[in-house]
Amino acid sequence: MNIRIGILGYGNLGRGVECAIKQNKDMELVAVFTRRNPSDVSILTKSAAVCSIDEVEKWKDKIDVMILCGGSATDLPKQTPEYAKMFNVVDSFDTHAKIPEHFANVDEAARDGGKVGLISVGWDPGMFSLNRMYANAILPEGKDYTFWGKGVSQGHSDAIRRIAGVKNAKQYTIPVEEALESVRKGENPELTTRQKHIRECFVVLEDGADAAKVEEEIKTMPNYFADYDTIVHFISEEELMKNHSGIPHGGFVLRSGKTGWESENNHLIEYSLKLDSNPEFTACVIVAYARAAYRLYKEGQVGCKTVFDIAPAYLSAKSGEELRKEML
Amino acid sequence: MNIRIGILGYGNLGRGVECAIKQNKDMELVAVFTRRNPSDVSILTKSAAVCSIDEVEKWKDKIDVMILCGGSATDLPKQTPEYAKMFNVVDSFDTHAKIPEHFANVDEAARDGGKVGLISVGWDPGMFSLNRMYANAILPEGKDYTFWGKGVSQGHSDAIRRIAGVKNAKQYTIPVEEALESVRKGENPELTTRQKHIRECFVVLEDGADAAKVEEEIKTMPNYFADYDTIVHFISEEELMKNHSGIPHGGFVLRSGKTGWESENNHLIEYSLKLDSNPEFTACVIVAYARAAYRLYKEGQVGCKTVFDIAPAYLSAKSGEELRKEML
Repeated sequence: MNIRIGILGYGNLGRGVECAIKQNKDMELVAVFTRRNPSDVSILTKSAAVCSIDEVEKWKDKIDVMILCGGSATDLPKQTPEYAKMFNVVDSFDTHAKIPEHFANVDEAARDGGKVGLISVGWDPGMFSLNRMYANAILPEGKDYTFWGKGVSQGHSDAIRRIAGVKNAKQYTIPVEEALESVRKGENPELTTRQKHIRECFVVLEDGADAAKVEEEIKTMPNYFADYDTIVHFISEEELMKNHSGIPHGGFVLRSGKTGWESENNHLIEYSLKLDSNPEFTACVIVAYARAAYRLYKEGQVGCKTVFDIAPAYLSAKSGEELRKEML
Repeated sequence: MNIRIGILGYGNLGRGVECAIKQNKDMELVAVFTRRNPSDVSILTKSAAVCSIDEVEKWKDKIDVMILCGGSATDLPKQTPEYAKMFNVVDSFDTHAKIPEHFANVDEAARDGGKVGLISVGWDPGMFSLNRMYANAILPEGKDYTFWGKGVSQGHSDAIRRIAGVKNAKQYTIPVEEALESVRKGENPELTTRQKHIRECFVVLEDGADAAKVEEEIKTMPNYFADYDTIVHFISEEELMKNHSGIPHGGFVLRSGKTGWESENNHLIEYSLKLDSNPEFTACVIVAYARAAYRLYKEGQVGCKTVFDIAPAYLSAKSGEELRKEML
């Protein structure tokens, strides 16, 4: 029997999960739950139901894993503990500083319900975290670097849109090539915020807005832009739609370390992602971990887990024999 | 109490393990076992014993994990099952085609002895396998590529040394840059053996040997060189020692895949290693997995396992809380 998946929240991530399920033959999307009026939500999977979030409890025995596709700011801190009482759940909670608190809340709820809750699944947190952790365990004497991009930062794009006179905007985070090369050469540089990333902004102005003033406001915005070299382009709405409607992202995790009795040898471990669609890739990671959540639950495990706690084989549809024969 | 480690076999890998243990504060090297006369073997760790392999059984209760540093051709197929009856063991068995058979033998022995046996730990098999597996689980629709190098192939260097008239030789495997770039661009190329790697050889001739004949013999050697673009340089013994005495290696694991309802988006996952010392890096991976073997044993697990079966957190000296706080 297929693993029966539910999706809670049908935005970019929810739609990405729907697409990913289609690529995994041992899984099946059974229902999408929404806060909107279900009749207003049109999904791609003909065989799946669209339901109000208020009905979710009725699906307790019809869904093996519920994938929570809400946001980390306000949705997931409430939703993941709430639904972990009823379902095995996977979320992509990405507020790094609040992970310990979220873990504790989900752990308690999942144990109460006898379920498995997998949190912070995606690429960062997620695959990037895993690579940081593996690389640190392998090379205890070393230095870590994470670069993000080139990719769209939703938070930074939103921050620009809130400026008076701005009609629309898209912000790209771009790693500084020289910094990356220095790390790759084993130079172990100490890098400031400005030396690591550039911020490039494409901005559509309202009629009559003062471009110079908007540019100044962007470049001096604390936290978001003031500490970076920021490039601002003013473009038309048409150009924004035509050339900047995608949601690409990616990045690099590197660890440079030393081995040998006198630390005489250098090593570099590098992991990188180049993604056309940030939410679709995140969804692919989540769906692989949904398989793991289901299997752990079947084994009788309960409580909150992260990517660090899951043996890799649980993610794959292949058997242990197949994996050893084909991939080891 | 520290994890007490034994090393069986003291060549490049054994010495690498010794160095790696020094970097891991929760571990301690207690003894090195050798087939040579122990008094002829000088190790770096003052506090550790050097013993004959014949005495190994006496150490049953004094060693938590025995790291087997023999070769895959003849040593490990015998040694790993033999010692898995007495010790938790980790090996770096790397004959890919024989892994299923080796797994079965080690599994039976380890279960008999109530021990954990971790096989095929290193970077390929090992970290490369893990990255192939994770990437396949995340992107079910895609294509895999593994490139090796730039690095020294011991097997190919040995093959050249066996040619009449050759005094010494070193062979580098080098990935073809154009092929790598094509994969990175998402072109999903079909690559022949020749299109993926170049073989570069540095050869020292015996006095009076015929260089043209040796070069011809190298370039036409079946399996090893005939299917590759092979470059042969003749150099002096001094130059070989000065410029080619290291054992660097590395490589690239890439998966290029598609997502989206109509497979409209491309993604690239890339993992790469650049290693000054192949045996020292392999040793670092092994030592991290020795920690995992010890913990699994403490939990009551038995039998043969591979990197696919080990949750990442087991490799790290840090606690679950620390990992979630610092690395997730």
